[in-house]
Parts: sequence; structure tokens; C-alpha cells
Amino acid sequence: MHATTRSVRPLAASEVDEFTHETDVLVIGFGCAGAAAALEADTAGARTILLERQSGGGGSAALSGGEIYLGGGTGIQQACGFTDTPAEMEKFLLAALGPDADADKVRHYCHGSVEHYEWLVAQGVPFTPSLWDSPTWVPPTDDGLMWMGENAYPFCDLATPAPRGHRVTSDGFGGKVLMAVLSDAIAASGVAVHTDTAVQRLMVEGDRVVGVSARHFGETVTYRARRGVVITTGGFADNTAMLAQHAPQLVSLGVNSDGGDDGRGIRMAQAAGAAIRHMSAGQVGISLIPGMMVRGMIVNELGQRFINEDVYPGLVGQAALFKHGLRVWVILDEKGYEEVPENERWGVVPHFVAESVSELEREVGMPDGALQNTVAEYNRYAGEGIDPYFHKSARWLRPLQAPFAAIDVRKGIAPPEYGAAGGGGAEVFTLGGLCTTVDGAVLDLDGEAIPGLFAAGRATSGLHSWGYISGTSLGDGTFFGRRAGAAAS
Amino acid sequence: MHATTRSVRPLAASEVDEFTHETDVLVIGFGCAGAAAALEADTAGARTILLERQSGGGGSAALSGGEIYLGGGTGIQQACGFTDTPAEMEKFLLAALGPDADADKVRHYCHGSVEHYEWLVAQGVPFTPSLWDSPTWVPPTDDGLMWMGENAYPFCDLATPAPRGHRVTSDGFGGKVLMAVLSDAIAASGVAVHTDTAVQRLMVEGDRVVGVSARHFGETVTYRARRGVVITTGGFADNTAMLAQHAPQLVSLGVNSDGGDDGRGIRMAQAAGAAIRHMSAGQVGISLIPGMMVRGMIVNELGQRFINEDVYPGLVGQAALFKHGLRVWVILDEKGYEEVPENERWGVVPHFVAESVSELEREVGMPDGALQNTVAEYNRYAGEGIDPYFHKSARWLRPLQAPFAAIDVRKGIAPPEYGAAGGGGAEVFTLGGLCTTVDGAVLDLDGEAIPGLFAAGRATSGLHSWGYISGTSLGDGTFFGRRAGAAAS
Repeated sequence: MHATTRSVRPLAASEVDEFTHETDVLVIGFGCAGAAAALEADTAGARTILLERQSGGGGSAALSGGEIYLGGGTGIQQACGFTDTPAEMEKFLLAALGPDADADKVRHYCHGSVEHYEWLVAQGVPFTPSLWDSPTWVPPTDDGLMWMGENAYPFCDLATPAPRGHRVTSDGFGGKVLMAVLSDAIAASGVAVHTDTAVQRLMVEGDRVVGVSARHFGETVTYRARRGVVITTGGFADNTAMLAQHAPQLVSLGVNSDGGDDGRGIRMAQAAGAAIRHMSAGQVGISLIPGMMVRGMIVNELGQRFINEDVYPGLVGQAALFKHGLRVWVILDEKGYEEVPENERWGVVPHFVAESVSELEREVGMPDGALQNTVAEYNRYAGEGIDPYFHKSARWLRPLQAPFAAIDVRKGIAPPEYGAAGGGGAEVFTLGGLCTTVDGAVLDLDGEAIPGLFAAGRATSGLHSWGYISGTSLGDGTFFGRRAGAAAS
Repeated sequence: MHATTRSVRPLAASEVDEFTHETDVLVIGFGCAGAAAALEADTAGARTILLERQSGGGGSAALSGGEIYLGGGTGIQQACGFTDTPAEMEKFLLAALGPDADADKVRHYCHGSVEHYEWLVAQGVPFTPSLWDSPTWVPPTDDGLMWMGENAYPFCDLATPAPRGHRVTSDGFGGKVLMAVLSDAIAASGVAVHTDTAVQRLMVEGDRVVGVSARHFGETVTYRARRGVVITTGGFADNTAMLAQHAPQLVSLGVNSDGGDDGRGIRMAQAAGAAIRHMSAGQVGISLIPGMMVRGMIVNELGQRFINEDVYPGLVGQAALFKHGLRVWVILDEKGYEEVPENERWGVVPHFVAESVSELEREVGMPDGALQNTVAEYNRYAGEGIDPYFHKSARWLRPLQAPFAAIDVRKGIAPPEYGAAGGGGAEVFTLGGLCTTVDGAVLDLDGEAIPGLFAAGRATSGLHSWGYISGTSLGDGTFFGRRAGAAAS
């Protein structure tokens, strides 16, 4: 489309004769984090420009399912009859997002969650006060609240369970509604949006970041930011070379993004001295129907179960990819398959069916005895309503009975959220990125804030370390985007 | 001992009035990579200074078992009757060190391996031309050659097997002999060694690295390097904060190092613009006796096997840590235990013994049926001499029979190589680090060489991505250390 500079090295502002644009706060990337940062900067009275490479805002957030992880006693939680506290939310997230989740960020996030929910509602983000109560990626309803595995082992033993998946009310996926609301808020604000503007390099004066240079329809344009630059450019799942450097297990899978998660914002900041962390971490949207899995089991290619099937399916995906190379199968019976309503099946049909488990394992290509042992053991205990191996809730335990079915996850149709292609069993995005404070200040290798430089969203390592719970991307992006925008002002 | 500067930011050489020392090539860190780099720089005619923080050379290399991964038809391989080629070695390493092992480095390493072996021998490194032929960490003999899993599944199907673990002849662990030989070579060379000198920061002139500042008995000393600075400062396994940032699963385990793997060399280079990669990768020296494991099985806390027990035990360790949180057990029978000679047991005795598998699984705390199924299935196939689940070699397959024993790996005594403390089941070190070319040039975020800056050894990401094979630390360090030293000259 237009020439880009390969180098990400910062430019010295002294080399720029005249800046094309000047502002107080410059936000790079009009996804959910950038919109939130720009809105707060504007609210704080800063002149704010929001840059976007595409011709309009939205980013990866607009393509997402629209779940926002919120809790601690939000209006929707109360309306649905659930009691929740920031402390229980904090315990859950520290366990689910670790090891080494950012305790400081998690604490701020949980204790500020009710206020953040109210801010979103005040912007106009709609939530419907009803609960969807079974495992799925995206419910076919507009229920505004859903479980994200808080009621599943081991989390149900670590923190008092409450559903915290807040769903933006929408016909289908809610990300587009969230971004439409935030875009309207931006339009109604004093924020100037410059689209078709691809930032190439940061500008520095000594140690301080003071602006950027960018490309706009083939021309180089420069921006001076008197108070701060906020990087909200997303992760690096679309950059194969960066994936290979940092997260080789994510290479060659499908990518859940708007195609622009090229990591350039991370690299530009690194070149200005920023530190990075948790770069190997990834969310793994595994290509299966949670409602089928939970009624049967998920096994590796040797017929071994490896996780309780009622946990948040992203954690199943991480286990399946990082521990079993995605060579995993959903095993269930006809009764379980039929129980899943057709509008929740996303068109997934079994790849093998058989009247006996021994026949099924032969068709799948497992060693003789492998799946037979697993199913026999599962059924023996399911009859008693217990799962001493993985502690799946009794709600989902029932001896499986003929006929049986096997679904090859690598051939599974992904929910539309994760792209029609299926991505070889999963669609991923990256969780690692820039080291930032709770106020979005980007830290250098000495652990000191780089003057003038802020970041939020997937360009940062955010709340997460290795784990992931759906809704913590939009939640982390908007929550810490707001804080970064305020701090930059 | 003496004050250190916390910051790793590079200093401008223009701020230094007079350098304390000037040289052509400056090598930081007197381990195996630093020694090799300094020797080659000296051979190339460069005035060379080798800096070491401790009072003498050695580094982590001196504490190691002394295996060097070499092949392609070395003298010792030939003397032991094995045919090998660089191409087969290359196939093995690409499979064992991946995903995304550095193909360029692996190719150079394999095709230069015979020459490198001869260089080591010319320095005076002793190798005894006989083979140790069973799984162990460090044989109790001075046999100079051992298998590193090349003859185990899946590697035996991917590349023609040949043993490539070259052991430095020694009374016990060979690392000290290797470093004594290299230290003698340094002493006989023109290299000046400055001990008790802790490098704090790099010095730069524009984009070029031109020296360092260091602390020496409480004084700041400065070094100008006219041609190049070579960082051979080791990994970051001793730096808990860095581990948490990049490899959280390695936190709180034992560390296999000389205590000085603080990552400062990596961070100093990063602050000068260097890129890093594969930072989540680690070698996991699991606290078990390979000879016991191979005669029985290794299982997770649910009694599931997860790998063929005859593979290189470092790969078992990685699977045990990254897939099963080190909650793993060695299960074997009395016959298998007795077969392991006492001098190979390192004092390890069973934590539980039982006359039946059901009794053993109850004592260990596994679900009723878990281990019974696994052992029954193992025995059923072992009687036929096959292992359709994990493809352990028929050599090690035999139905297990009462009495049975279980060894808790987390309580296992580590071989002395891995420290007496045992480290909670494993001793680890890091594999990620600086991005370098095959000639040791350190690359920046644009993929361009940083003028004047080189690196080798564990401070770089080396040959490896996620995998590891014993002998590729000393091998990679000395091989690419030599190349870096030559290139810096």
C-alpha cells in the first residue's frame, strides 16, 4: 500500500525541522485500549490525537466476542443474584493467569472493576442482566453474564465462585458493539482521529519520547506529543519471525486478530530501551465446542485425559497445545452430542463414530486398549458422580454409552470468532509484551519509566503471565488504557 | 563485596577522560565460551584481555559434567566403531533442539564439529576412546563417548543414530578438566586475564560498542576495545526477577550454575539495542536416576506415562516440568532397582514400596485404578517386547513384577552435578538470550549487527530453541565462542 521503513530505531527529534502535527497526548492504535486511553486523556483536558493505520477504528477488539472480565459486585452480577468481592476476583485471577501474573495490576484491576464497569455503561456499552449457564465460547443468546470457569476445579476451591464474563449485548459477537460505542464516544469527544496513518518510529529527545514519525498515503508525517505517547498497537501474533523468536509453539496456527498484530509497537518501544516480558505466553482458542467436550472428554492421541473439561476452554487450549501439540480428540456419546442444541454446534460433526470404544480407538489410530481404559475408568467413577482424576463437576458426569463419537480437534471448525479456516486446531494471540506500571508507564531494562512513553493492551504483558481467561483482553485493554491515557496527560 | 551500579545503560565513551586499559578485543567472562573466544582472538593476532568477575576462571562450565556434543565422524566415534556424518547429526539436533532451533547455527556446528573436536584435542582436552552404553547423567567411568538419546524414539527414526556425547576424561565430573586445559592454554597464550573485575556497563560511541566500565576492588576501571567486545557472561538462571519475566516456570527450582548467571551481560547488551529470543526455554536436570527410570517408568501424579523413558533425560525433565509441574514419580520393581549398580544410584532409595500396584498407588496418593491400569497395560505389551504408547526400545521392556517401588522425583537426590540440595525436583539453567549470527555478532531489533558487539555461550540463544541435549552448552559455547573471538579480531 505504501512504503514502510524497516528500521524501528528511534529518531532524534533534533533531526526534524518542523513537526506536521503537535498535540499533548498521542495514542497509537484505535482498538479498545487506544480508545479508552484517548477518552481519558481528553477527559483530563489534554489535546489528544489518536492514530490508526487502518481507515477506521476497531482493531482486533472489534472482531472479538465482546466478553469483558469484570466483577467484584457489578450491577449485572447483582441483578443476576450473585455476590462477588474484589478479593475473591483477585484470588481467582492470580490463580488463573499465573504463574507470575502481575499482582499489582491484578489488584488494581479487581478493586477498580465495579468503577470500570460503570464507566463502560456510562459510555453506552450495553449489558443484559441475565446469565448464560453452560460452557461455550460465545452463547447464542444476548445474556450479559457467563461463567469463565470460576466454578470449575481447581478455581472453585481457591476462590468463592461468581460468574464474571460480562457480555456486551449484541446480535452475535459483541466486540463490534463495544467498539461502535467507544468510537461514538471518541467522535463526541475532543479527540482528533487520524486514520490511514501507520507509525514507523518513535522520536526522542535524549531519554524522553516526544513523538513519532508515520506514513500517511505515501507521505512521511511527524507528530510531536508534548506530554506523552501511548502505544496501543496490539500483540505480535501476525509476525511469524517474532513468534519464532519468542513463542515458537504458536507458529503456523491460526491467528485471532485483525491482521495487524505485527508487534511493531513493541519493537519500536524496545528500540527506545523498553523491557519485555512473558513473550512466550499465548491464548489458545482451541477449535472445539465446549458443550460437546464437557459432556464427554478431551483426550490426547494416546487416549489420556489431561484436564477437567468444564474449565475455561482457553485453559484447555493451552494444555492441548503446550502439552500435547494439539493432537487431541473430543470423545463423547450420541446422547451427549444430541444434548448440544444445534445452534451451539457451529456445524461440528463427529469424524468417527463406532458402536464400541475399541472400534473407535482403532479408527482414530490409538493403541489397542488406550481409550478403552480411559473410558472404562471414567464411566466407573461417573456412575458414582465423581471424577477423582480431574474433578469435573458432578453436573457433567454420566457414564458414556454406545454409540460413541470422536472429533479431531485439528480438523475442528472454529467458532466464527476464531476465523473460518480453523487454523489447524486453534487460533492464537500473544499475551507477552512491554513491561508497564499500573499507570501504563513503559519500563526500561533498569526498571525505570521511560519519560513520555506509555502503553496498554496487548502491546503490554498486561495482567497475564502464562494463563488467560476470556475477557481479560478487552478488560485489561480498556482498564489500563484508561489509566495510561490519564497518566500521559 | 563492592558497590555495583544498578543501571545497565550504556555510557558514552566521550564521558571518559582516559581509559584505564586499552586492547583490541575484550572478552567478558572466563567460562568455556570466553576462553575459546579469547584463544581465537589471540591466535588471530589481536591484543586480547579476558575479564572475570571471580578470582579465577572456570564459570559454570567448570562445574559441569564435561560432556561436549560433537559428531560427524570424530576420532573417538571412529575408535568406538561408529560411522557418523554431519548431515545425520544435523537432522538429530534440529529435531531435538526445536521448535525453531537456529538452523544456520546447527548447520555450521555440525559441519565444523570434527574440526572443533580436533581443536579441543590440540588444546589438550583428553577423551578416552570407549563407549558408555546405558542411560545416565554422568557415567561412573572415564568412557569418552555416550549416547544422548540419539538411539531413542523418535530420533532413531529421524536420523541414523550415533553416540555424540563426548566426555572429557576426568576423575568424576569433566568440566573442571576442560576448564583447566583451557586455562592452561590461556596462560600459555598472549591473552591478559583480569580477574576480580565485574563489568557494569558497555561504552558506546554512537552506535558502536567500544568498551566497558567495570568494578575492580571497589574502584571503577574502564576498558577501550579497539576491535570488539565479546559477551560470554552466561545465562540468567540466578536472577529470579528475570526468570519471572521470561521463564516463570523455572522460578524457585535449583539452579545449575556457578551462582553468577545473573543475566547482566544480556541486559547490558539489550540496553545497547540488542534483541533477545527463546527466553522461556530452559534445561531441566530432573532429580532422578536415568538407569532406574529406564528399567521401569516415569508417571505423573495420575499414574499416566508421558514419554519414552530411554530418551535423553533432559527431555524427560522438560516434559516433567513444563507439562506436569514436576509432580512425577519413577515406578519400578525390585529387580530393576537391583540391576542398577550401587555406584550409579547416587544414594536414591524408594519412597514407597509395596507388594501390589494397588497398594503402591494408594500409598502414593493416586486415584484407585490409575497406576494399576498403566502398569497392566505396560506389562501386557512389554511381554511382547513392544511399547505402542511411547516406543521405548525393546532393550528396556520387561513386565514389572512385585515387589514394586515408587520414587518421588521432587524428593529425589540430584546427582552432585546438579547440587546437593536437589532443588525441589530439578536443577535448571536458561537457554534463551541474545540474538547472534553464526559469527557471534549481536543483532539489534532491526536484525542488524551492532558494531563492535559479539556474544557466545549461554548469554546467547545459541543453537537451541525449546529443546536441549547435554553437551550442547559446552559445545555451543566453545564452538561459537571461537567464531566470535575470530570475528571480533
